[in-house]
Amino acid sequence: MESRFNRLHFWFMIGGLETHHITRSFSSLRVNPDRMLAAFNQLALIGATSDGGVDRVTFSETHLAARPWFKEEIEKSGLEFRTDGAGNYSAFLSSSAPDDGHRKIPVRGDQTLLLGSHLDSVPNGGRFDGALGVMAALEVLKTVKESGINLKSRTELSRSVNLEAIDFTDEEGTLVGLLGSAALAGHLSQQDLDSPRGGRDKLVEGMKRAGLSDQSMLSAVRPKDSLAGYLELHIEQGKRLERAGMDIGIVSAIVGIWSYRLAFIGRADHAGSTTMDDRLDASLGASAFTLAAREMVLKDFPNCVVNVGKMDFAPGAFNIVPARVDVLLEFRSPDEEEFKRLDIALLELARREAGHFGLELNVEFLGKHSPSMMSDKVQLAYAGACDDLRLTHIALTSGAGHDGQSLVDMCPVGMIFVPSVDGASHAPREFTKWEDCINGANVLLQTVLKLAA
Amino acid sequence: MESRFNRLHFWFMIGGLETHHITRSFSSLRVNPDRMLAAFNQLALIGATSDGGVDRVTFSETHLAARPWFKEEIEKSGLEFRTDGAGNYSAFLSSSAPDDGHRKIPVRGDQTLLLGSHLDSVPNGGRFDGALGVMAALEVLKTVKESGINLKSRTELSRSVNLEAIDFTDEEGTLVGLLGSAALAGHLSQQDLDSPRGGRDKLVEGMKRAGLSDQSMLSAVRPKDSLAGYLELHIEQGKRLERAGMDIGIVSAIVGIWSYRLAFIGRADHAGSTTMDDRLDASLGASAFTLAAREMVLKDFPNCVVNVGKMDFAPGAFNIVPARVDVLLEFRSPDEEEFKRLDIALLELARREAGHFGLELNVEFLGKHSPSMMSDKVQLAYAGACDDLRLTHIALTSGAGHDGQSLVDMCPVGMIFVPSVDGASHAPREFTKWEDCINGANVLLQTVLKLAA
Repeated sequence: MESRFNRLHFWFMIGGLETHHITRSFSSLRVNPDRMLAAFNQLALIGATSDGGVDRVTFSETHLAARPWFKEEIEKSGLEFRTDGAGNYSAFLSSSAPDDGHRKIPVRGDQTLLLGSHLDSVPNGGRFDGALGVMAALEVLKTVKESGINLKSRTELSRSVNLEAIDFTDEEGTLVGLLGSAALAGHLSQQDLDSPRGGRDKLVEGMKRAGLSDQSMLSAVRPKDSLAGYLELHIEQGKRLERAGMDIGIVSAIVGIWSYRLAFIGRADHAGSTTMDDRLDASLGASAFTLAAREMVLKDFPNCVVNVGKMDFAPGAFNIVPARVDVLLEFRSPDEEEFKRLDIALLELARREAGHFGLELNVEFLGKHSPSMMSDKVQLAYAGACDDLRLTHIALTSGAGHDGQSLVDMCPVGMIFVPSVDGASHAPREFTKWEDCINGANVLLQTVLKLAA
Repeated sequence: MESRFNRLHFWFMIGGLETHHITRSFSSLRVNPDRMLAAFNQLALIGATSDGGVDRVTFSETHLAARPWFKEEIEKSGLEFRTDGAGNYSAFLSSSAPDDGHRKIPVRGDQTLLLGSHLDSVPNGGRFDGALGVMAALEVLKTVKESGINLKSRTELSRSVNLEAIDFTDEEGTLVGLLGSAALAGHLSQQDLDSPRGGRDKLVEGMKRAGLSDQSMLSAVRPKDSLAGYLELHIEQGKRLERAGMDIGIVSAIVGIWSYRLAFIGRADHAGSTTMDDRLDASLGASAFTLAAREMVLKDFPNCVVNVGKMDFAPGAFNIVPARVDVLLEFRSPDEEEFKRLDIALLELARREAGHFGLELNVEFLGKHSPSMMSDKVQLAYAGACDDLRLTHIALTSGAGHDGQSLVDMCPVGMIFVPSVDGASHAPREFTKWEDCINGANVLLQTVLKLAA
């Protein structure tokens, strides 16, 4: 299969970039698995937890230790280090060196093919989420640099394509969520910074520690035509690849996320002297909603998920009937129309359960990300790279949000997943076999070459 | 009615103390309502909240401000101030002054008739809970002192009966619960201090602020025969008196309280990429248990109550399936046998709901107070005092725990309740009409005289 395709040197084009089957010299290029593993393992020590995970919450001490380590790793490789006002850290590989005879010096307006992920983690998270994507992107740049390949736009051969491996700030949303990518794409507003989901105080304190500010965040926007595309390798964070026995998942869409704070409000009473019938117990509405929301999604919204990640009880004493329970609600869908139906259904359910127990309901909308479609062209390039590498692949939706969704209006975006053992994610037991990690990195490398070599 | 009973001068005896119908000179004695209101209102300013309640959590700044105010109020009245190693604050009225011709000087072994309640509150509580009982007890001592009555034991006329109005430390259980009364009665153990329900750190910090220690706490125990009885006036904290249109509730038993921390343990997973079916969501077990426990108590245990006062979610993030939910559970019963059945039923229910959602259950027993029967003799004395004062009365169980339960093995104990408007309790809107407060104080005064004049 491989040799036939290489002989054909077959080209096709969708959207602004072209893909083509690469020549034998490029198609045999592979990342260095030992070098990538060494870097990955060093990174995993920064914020390592006793149970094998990492805790690198955005702008925490451990997160702020991982970034200078990444900078040093970039500079040791002979790549250029870059950063911006959003605190995004990048390795940069200019492709303007003289080698294709067209021109010899960098030209303003060259496009950059961006690869990356994030170094921050959820509290008490795993070693692979985000970290694998950044380490693989860096390894791809090291490999391309060593190979001496000069990348260029397939639509405009006079234009070079630079490579950049980026660590996006606060992907996980301890502060804002997809913060670095939103800033880069110009989607970040002062309003987002004024009422971030993690609270304004935490954001201000974190930015201060990182030497950033509202102003610097809003200055990180890049020109709309500056990116040739965005590619990301990530662990699946689910069991679909493992169950299907597949090597690579090619993401067709990233689900959208809506979040709310629902306050079920009853009345504080003495928990001994107030009869059961006389209570307005906020815990009952919150509990009934949590159970019914799950049932409803399982039954009526099979493509969606819902999560009650936290409840806050007030006053929160043994001997006082809960007067108020705040429910942190998040739900996801790959389809905008389904989202709207689910939104209406969940809020109606919350109102019904509150009413059933004589409670009031306060609804606070916290934010939304719409579902994001991945670029068909990039998906095809990924599939071609998998086939070349004799790796099996299936199309998947991403139930998790990712920085790519910030960039879909700006450039072609595509993601691949590698299998997560037992589907574990956002937990210390998160694990992906190293062979699968390397497969993913090689698909990333070969896709870069298909898109811009 | 009143004059006939007074003429009879009827005596009867149950237990260690006698009661008798008091002579006309004593039966006309009343507390000073204006003086008691002035003191009550001054106290309500200490820790006052903007919504009309008070916040005087044990050993907080406000609580530690209320106690010196109480001491000054005692000393201004010419009563003796006493305190002990548990931080209980008392007004003391010795009845050993020469007046009955039997003897002239204090005799070791005199008994004390204790009246009281507590000055601490739940977080963001009301003005009446505890405070009314302490202010009424103090007013009774002021009134008896002014009257020049010399109290004596009805079983041993050579023995005087002193009066004491006590503020018990930490009745509400922010730290330990019924702490001062347990220490006084010798029920407090080092183990109770080592693992208090509010956490050891909070207890140690609080004791330090109050100048107390484990050692001083355990030294506060009084001799078993030192108390002639314990009387307490409290607001009902329920709607039974209001609904029945009655003036006074005479408590027949204080319910017992058992408390647990139940941990529903699942698995932390990504809340977007993990399908609904693949989750081990701890919130589901906790929610289902909370709803089912209420249903079960309503249906099968009509004399009992159950409360889930708080849930703690871990890790507690929007985008992580809850791995663990700790449920703070408390339930109450006036009957020991019913308690055991309820205990078994609730734990079985928790296991069933955990199992239903694939969760583990960790059960941590936090403590119990058995139901406490009030003294028949004291109840009869209360009833007689109500009749003399032409106040209507009914027998009630107390759904709330009170310090009296610490003392039932030590001396005859009895409580009365006055109506709570709308049954409000442990909340800023807690309210009792001042006329009802004064009725309660006069029943307390007249009962003291019946028991020891």
